[in-house]
Amino acid sequence: MRNNDFNDVVQNRHSVRHFDKSVKIPRSEFKEMFEETITAPSGCNLQGWHFEVADTPETIAKVKKYMLRFNDPQMDSCAAVVQVFADVYAYKKYRENWTKEYETGNITKEKLDEVLRTFLPSYENGTYYSCAIDSIRSCSLAAMQFMLVARNHGYDTNPIAGYDESKIARTFNLEPKRYLPVMAIVIGKSNETEETRAKTTRYPAESVYHFAE
Amino acid sequence: MRNNDFNDVVQNRHSVRHFDKSVKIPRSEFKEMFEETITAPSGCNLQGWHFEVADTPETIAKVKKYMLRFNDPQMDSCAAVVQVFADVYAYKKYRENWTKEYETGNITKEKLDEVLRTFLPSYENGTYYSCAIDSIRSCSLAAMQFMLVARNHGYDTNPIAGYDESKIARTFNLEPKRYLPVMAIVIGKSNETEETRAKTTRYPAESVYHFAE
Repeated sequence: MRNNDFNDVVQNRHSVRHFDKSVKIPRSEFKEMFEETITAPSGCNLQGWHFEVADTPETIAKVKKYMLRFNDPQMDSCAAVVQVFADVYAYKKYRENWTKEYETGNITKEKLDEVLRTFLPSYENGTYYSCAIDSIRSCSLAAMQFMLVARNHGYDTNPIAGYDESKIARTFNLEPKRYLPVMAIVIGKSNETEETRAKTTRYPAESVYHFAE
Repeated sequence: MRNNDFNDVVQNRHSVRHFDKSVKIPRSEFKEMFEETITAPSGCNLQGWHFEVADTPETIAKVKKYMLRFNDPQMDSCAAVVQVFADVYAYKKYRENWTKEYETGNITKEKLDEVLRTFLPSYENGTYYSCAIDSIRSCSLAAMQFMLVARNHGYDTNPIAGYDESKIARTFNLEPKRYLPVMAIVIGKSNETEETRAKTTRYPAESVYHFAE
């Protein structure tokens, strides 16, 4: 069932909006997928990601409430929605985490002193905005890896933003100032046909990179 | 040379900070890697990513100037640095891009009207901050895909943030209000040994996801 063909997994990923309603995803498989997702990198390894999984008709209905009607086809056929949150206060565990890496023998005392001296102040003296950006960026790295891991497991996804962000944390009983919604990822078994599949084009690669001079 | 083993590419990725100095990456291969990177999704397919590639001693030296000394080992041994920028004004091509998708036959007139009515106003009436977040998020998705594509090509990477962001766009002659630095990705052929390799641990998966109730 696992698709281990890197090129196929990555290059044939596209946003799927029509799923096979009969397919559910076992919770044990979600655990596997998250284990395989969180090897993604994050700023200073702060791992400020939190995933809320709506995988029952009741919880999916709660998510649907804050979605735009544009997304009804996905919401009405998916197996689950993974709402990705950025923990803006992830940096509060900075000292504890890196001290543990030193105690485990993963880094030297010199490295520990260096990271505490170099990076911790940039969080502690940073603005709410800069801490939010840092966490959103790391969560997006994990979100991309999750979408690919999902395909490795035989599922497809559609990342969704553009909903009213103000009510989302509360939907999951999370503190809204601490947990910012990054994106929702709809997941399920694709039921897409050539006809229903949305096709999108990309700018030519040459227009998006440049060799510095 | 290509490693098509999905599990190996994704699960054995880690930040590499020591590279084989003798290995350069052909510019034609950068083109391939970017072609394989930009199939990543982006908010409303706006593709607000711009990659500046420093792959000469002179341009790498320019990047090194705004990096923290912490990153010297990578900077002194890598084949190149890809500085990822978020184009905050990517949405200005919204109408043009989606009209083209309609004209190409990729979407119906109804879908075109729907996306123009639903999402375009959220950008046009959005704040600078909300447009920046949207673009940074999409760029981070592409950044993750780039790091995995790099491994598929036999290279390794290290994503870097935490530098003085104010001077970076100017280093590449880009307009600083429009182009925000997302992260720098150092790339090269790994020369890491068990001894030099930084090991990091992750929180247990169970602590980062939750089934909504």
